[in-house]
Formats: sequence, structure tokens, C-alpha cells
Amino acid sequence: MELARAVTAQADSAWGPGSAKRLLMAMLSAAVDSALPGRCVPANLPSPPRGRTIVVGAGKAAAAMAQAVEDHWPTPVYGVVVTRYGHTTPCRSISVLEAGHPIPDQAGVEAARTLLDTVSGLGPDDLVLCLISGGGSALLPALPPGVSLDDERALARALINSGASISEMNCVRKHVSLIKGGQLAAAAAPARVVTLVISDVPGDDPSTIASGPTVPDPTTRHDALAIIERRGIAVPPSILAWLGSAASETPKPQPGSEPDCRLIATPQLALEAAATVAREAGFQPLILGNAIEGEARDVGLVHAAIARQVLDHAQPAKAPCVILSGGETTVTVRGTGRGGRNVEFLLSLLIGLGEHEEIAAIAADTDGIDGTEDNAGAIISHGTLDRARQLGLSAKDFLMRNDAYSFFRATGDLVTTGATLTNVNDFRAILIGAPLSLEPEAR
Amino acid sequence: MELARAVTAQADSAWGPGSAKRLLMAMLSAAVDSALPGRCVPANLPSPPRGRTIVVGAGKAAAAMAQAVEDHWPTPVYGVVVTRYGHTTPCRSISVLEAGHPIPDQAGVEAARTLLDTVSGLGPDDLVLCLISGGGSALLPALPPGVSLDDERALARALINSGASISEMNCVRKHVSLIKGGQLAAAAAPARVVTLVISDVPGDDPSTIASGPTVPDPTTRHDALAIIERRGIAVPPSILAWLGSAASETPKPQPGSEPDCRLIATPQLALEAAATVAREAGFQPLILGNAIEGEARDVGLVHAAIARQVLDHAQPAKAPCVILSGGETTVTVRGTGRGGRNVEFLLSLLIGLGEHEEIAAIAADTDGIDGTEDNAGAIISHGTLDRARQLGLSAKDFLMRNDAYSFFRATGDLVTTGATLTNVNDFRAILIGAPLSLEPEAR
Repeated sequence: MELARAVTAQADSAWGPGSAKRLLMAMLSAAVDSALPGRCVPANLPSPPRGRTIVVGAGKAAAAMAQAVEDHWPTPVYGVVVTRYGHTTPCRSISVLEAGHPIPDQAGVEAARTLLDTVSGLGPDDLVLCLISGGGSALLPALPPGVSLDDERALARALINSGASISEMNCVRKHVSLIKGGQLAAAAAPARVVTLVISDVPGDDPSTIASGPTVPDPTTRHDALAIIERRGIAVPPSILAWLGSAASETPKPQPGSEPDCRLIATPQLALEAAATVAREAGFQPLILGNAIEGEARDVGLVHAAIARQVLDHAQPAKAPCVILSGGETTVTVRGTGRGGRNVEFLLSLLIGLGEHEEIAAIAADTDGIDGTEDNAGAIISHGTLDRARQLGLSAKDFLMRNDAYSFFRATGDLVTTGATLTNVNDFRAILIGAPLSLEPEAR
Repeated sequence: MELARAVTAQADSAWGPGSAKRLLMAMLSAAVDSALPGRCVPANLPSPPRGRTIVVGAGKAAAAMAQAVEDHWPTPVYGVVVTRYGHTTPCRSISVLEAGHPIPDQAGVEAARTLLDTVSGLGPDDLVLCLISGGGSALLPALPPGVSLDDERALARALINSGASISEMNCVRKHVSLIKGGQLAAAAAPARVVTLVISDVPGDDPSTIASGPTVPDPTTRHDALAIIERRGIAVPPSILAWLGSAASETPKPQPGSEPDCRLIATPQLALEAAATVAREAGFQPLILGNAIEGEARDVGLVHAAIARQVLDHAQPAKAPCVILSGGETTVTVRGTGRGGRNVEFLLSLLIGLGEHEEIAAIAADTDGIDGTEDNAGAIISHGTLDRARQLGLSAKDFLMRNDAYSFFRATGDLVTTGATLTNVNDFRAILIGAPLSLEPEAR
């Protein structure tokens, strides 16, 4: 909540009321706000148990989710969550650990062990609240007997380079872990387990996010071995030995006992929240997709073509409207410049659009950090190209060397929010209206 | 018209009535049909003059356009058009020449000279019908004095590699030519000139298509020189010398005398024709854009994400619907496989969609040739992945080596129409419905 307010405050101070930029910032703010643990955790909490309440969790939002539980839970809670370095927020009775991401480290190994210890020895009247968000898989390397951290890291790298699909990678990961694929929930039995999930993945499948520590796994260790063989994945011998033993099998789904998993924040919900803001401002929202992938500059060109179609032919929607999309683009780095995928998308969009007084757009990572820079994203408006021209900057040249951050820093169009402590992936909005419907910028 | 009938006949024989594939073929057929000279030329002819009617023209559709004029013109006509090798169709009184494309050749030099000769010495009662379609620029290398064909070809290559924008390239091209940028119309004065244009370029600007031989040019030779300097384009000395002389200046627009240019076929009109077919079949058409550009596989991923959004959230449209788009994607060749941009798009779309009984899609070049193969494009349906699996083919592997043609040849999903003798760029349609609304395939 505080972060959403910070975003709004920036909009107020930097850009005048009624401007396109302010509306775009309000949409981003609504999207991020919908996913902030302070908002989405309380609304989805179960009723308290007769016994103890234990909180565990992992992911970029884990600490903020734990804090939200503490703030709203009527009885004492204790437990432990693990988050990425730098993503801590203070909690009172729940321990917050930090660990390595995306490559697992020793702190993660210890955190996974602590989580499993915390849920062991519980009774049927106890409740385990499991708080899951993106990044949880790498943060919880629960090593099987005989498997070292180096083996685990070698597996992580081999999987990424194998060409295996996400579901194939998850099948292998779940069987080379003591916590994934429903094993955390099994360790908590007979306690009741309720999982709250903030999703940053296409499809929002709880068994995929953080490799589903509380979601029983229909795949088998034989599936995992078949994938390793088919994909020719170079796997350390210790891991092959582990997969050869029955002990590596994961808990299987049981008819009539569905896990209680609650999707409390998703890319789609974030887009819907922004759509509501747009509609109230008189702009018809058009949600293209919540899981758009592809090379950022090409995704930018497609968005530009759609926006031009709105202006030229009132298709696929009539202006005033706003085109919304989510998901995660990629950047194939060719140059030596600075910038994440959102500014790269936006610079390509700017080039594809050309000069249009009727269009303004925003692209930002809802976690507040676009790539490895200090900005969440940027905004383009009809002033952007003007300013670039005055500065003698060529948008194409900056894009060619992957230097979108420097471009938008120079034009003064970066959007900076700081880490939001949540993540529902990227947020993009293209506002299209008659020039008169957008008040002049106050800058 | 014959080619459209051929397309429909293929649909009838290969795919059963009522199937998704048949509807997709009917949409492609309607799109191509809208751009066939036999249909779009007669509807846009001016009234005959008191004097002579002379036909000139250039482009991939030039011969078919000339034939359509001959078939529908009430008085005798004569003239000459130039088309790409292999794009001839028999004409009675209009000569059809062939020349090199995309790299100009000696036949093109002679054709350009013949065109200029044909329109010289006309009177105010005469009418010049100028028939323009894509590819006309390379087909008409009208060399200025002192400039050799090798110089012209060196310029063509230097421009393409310079990073110059389309409008910058056109500015240079027009000033290194005796026919482009309105010079053909100037040579025809005082005769009346009417230009019929089949557009394959984003924005449909007649001054861009074939470098606008009948459209006065607001840019100057000084602009051309500035572009050459700014972009560091290595230009042969003969061309620099020509640009230094006042003779290289193009005709400028005169207030009150607009050129009579008629856009008789465009990507947008083709999409609208397909939309009508879809609507009549009960599928709501959603035209995303008529000028979508970008790397084919990434454009495919974005289309896949939009189609999934329709299924999952009834956004940006409710099924049953069809997503339509046009424009021209690009393929960065990494592998050694076969296939044009439309099958590459489609293979990526297939991967992005995964298994969906409710979705079928087509992508094809409206000129009938996707890249350098013998197919126009391909179709995917829920049988495609099944057949690939039975054959042990991995869609991802084929895409990785740019081998989409071989993939769809193996699954039996290629669409072959032969050269259509017209071109309004690529055509893509994604049909999304409830499984029951699409009858089973008859294959």
C-alpha cells in the first residue's frame, strides 16, 4: 500500500493533473496495488484454526506477505519465510531469511531445511499458511541425501540450457528436492495447509510457481529420468542415483483431497485493476493478453501496429481507448547499453509509432525493477521525440545498442518506484485518444 | 479471379465443407480476390478520354493489371508495362516486359527507357493510365546521364545496409532516377495521368510504392545529399556528381493540382474482405492491424498470447471470433532449413498456443509465394500437433533451424496457390471457437 502511494505521489508531483502521463501512472499504480500483499493477503485469509498457526513461504514477496499476515491475523503466529537478498521487510514473530536467486546458494539450503523443520510435528488442529510468490523455486534448494549444492547448481544450469519445456524442467526439479512438488505439504501433515499464491507465470498454475511445494505432483521419477534421457541433460551422478531410488518419488494427487491454493494476485487481476481506472477516466480498456512473450523490440512493433490501426481504422477498438498487456518479454543483448526489457519494449514502440500526439504509453515491471537498473520502466508521450530531437538523440541508434535506459534518462521519461516487494510480471498500457482529450503536460 | 477460384477449389477438394480449414481458406481467398486486378481494376477505371489511351506500369501485378484494362476498356489502348520475371500474363495490345527484382538489371534499364518514350509527345486530350504495384522501384532503374547500372546497383545495396528509413531511402532513390518521384507524370504532360495503385506497404502512401513515378516529390536533391552524408552511405562518384547538378531535381507538388492516384487494393481492404467472410460464418472478426512488422517468431508468440486470452478471459474479444492481421514480418535466418516468413510465424504460433481444439489458423503471402518455396503459407489445426507427434517431429527443433516449410510439408499442412499476380502483403487469420462449432476435418 505504501509503495502504491509512493507511485501516486510521484505522478502528482512530476506530472500535472489530467495529463496522459498521470493517467498512465494511475493505471500502473492500480496494477501494482492489486498485487501488494498488504491488500491481497488479508482478503484471502482463511478462518483461524483451533490449534497453532504456522507461517512458511518463499519468493520475492514472501516477507511482505508474512508482514501482511502478522498485521491481520487474530491469533499469535510464528514461522519462517525465505526471500531474495534485499527483499526483506521487518516482521515481528515470523523469521525472514534471505537467499540466492536465480542461482541457489548455501543460505537457501539452510532456509529450506528450516522450513521443513518448522512444519514437522504438527497436529490436525494446526494450520500452515504457505506464502508463495515468484522466485521461490531457486530460494528453496532442499537437497536430497548425497546431493551437494554444487550438484544442484549444475542441474539448474543444465536444465536451463537443455531446451526442455517449463513443465519438463519442473518435473525434474520436483524429484530432485525434498520440498517441491507437494513435499512441504506432506511434511506438514496432519496439519491443514492453505497456500496463498502471487503468480508471475503464464497460466497461473500453482504447481508451477516455486515448483509447487504444497501441490501434489502427478509426474513420477520415471518421467524425470525419461526427460533427462530424451533431452540429453548432463546430470551429476549423485542426482541420477537419487532418482534411481524410490525415496525420490513425490506425493501424488489423491481424489477428493484438493490442495487449498488461493491465487491472490495475478497478471490478469493487475490488468483488470488498471482497466477499471481507464474506464473511469473515459478510456475503453482492451486487454490483449496477460502472458505476452517474445523479443521485447518485436513485441513493441506489434503493439505499435495495433495502436496505429486504432487511429487509422478504429480497429480493434475505437479511441479513446487503452491497450493493456502483461507477461514477460525477453531481450537478446547485442549492444553494450543499459536497460531492461520494459524500456527496450517502449523504445521500439516509440520508433514503430512515430510522431503521434494522440498516443502515450507506459511499460514497467510490477516488481519495480526493470532489469538491473534503478527504474521500474518508462513513459512515452508526444513530448518524448521532441526532447530526443532537441538533444540530438536517435531512438534507433539507442535501440540498436540496447541502451533504452540511457535514452529515457536523457529525455526525462524514466519511471522510478523502487522495489515494490511483489511481482505480477510486466505491465504495459498504451493510451490512445483525440489530442484534446489529453490535457497538455505540466512539465 | 481464376486464381481465387483455384484457391477455393483446393479448399473444396482437400478439406471437407464446414471445417475450420475450409473457412480459413475461404478467408484467404476473399483477401486475395479483393486484390486481383481482374476485380479491382475495372471498378476504378476513369472515363475514356477524347484522345488516345496509353497504359504504362510497373510492379509484380503490372501484367495482370494491364490485362484487366484491356478486358474492360471501351476504346483501343496501347502501351507497355514491366513486371518481375515469371509474373507475365498474356496481353493483346499492351507490351509486357520482364526485368530483375529486387536487384535491378539491364532489362529494367531498357524497360524504364521504353516507358518514358511511350509517354512522350502526348497531347492534352490523351490519357495515361499508370498501373503501379509493389516491386516497381527495382523494376524501373531509369539511369541518369553518367550513372551506370553497376553504380545503381551499388547504391541499392548501400542504401539497404545504411540503416536509413524507408522515406530516406526513397528520397535518395527518387533523385537518382529519371522516372521516379513524379518524373514519369512530368514526361507525360500535357496528357492527363490517372494512377491505379495496388499497395503492399504500411500506410499505403502512393509516393512510396514503386517510388511514386507519378507523384510529385516534396523532397529535394539537397535532402538526398544530406541523408547520404548523415548516414555515411558509400555512394559512387557518378551519383554524387549527378546529385550536384540541378538536373537531378524532381517535380514538386503544385497547389491545386493533386495527382489522380487511386488505391484500388490494400492490405486493409483484403482484411476487410476476409472479415466479411468470417462474419457471415458466425465468427466475430477482430482486425489487429494491417501493417504488423517484426521478427516472425516473436509476432507469432504475441498472436498466440492474444488467442489464449480470448479462450481464457474472452478478451480482447469473445469466441467464436477470428483474429486478423496483415503486414510483413521478417525472419533472421539462424539455421539451414527451408521456409518463408509465413510458415515461420505459424510454427511459432503453434508452439505458443500448445494443444487447443478450439483454434485453427492460416498464414500466407497474398502473392502466393512465401519466401522462395512453392507454397503460399500453411494452416494449423488441432490435428497438426497430433500428426507431428506421430511422425516424431519436434516443432521447436524445426523452428530453431528455420525449417518450418519442412515441418508443415511433413504434417501435410502447406497451402499452395501458385503465384497470384497480385500482392497486398501477408495475410493471417486465427479462428477461435468452441470445439463443437468447427466440424471435424474431412481429411
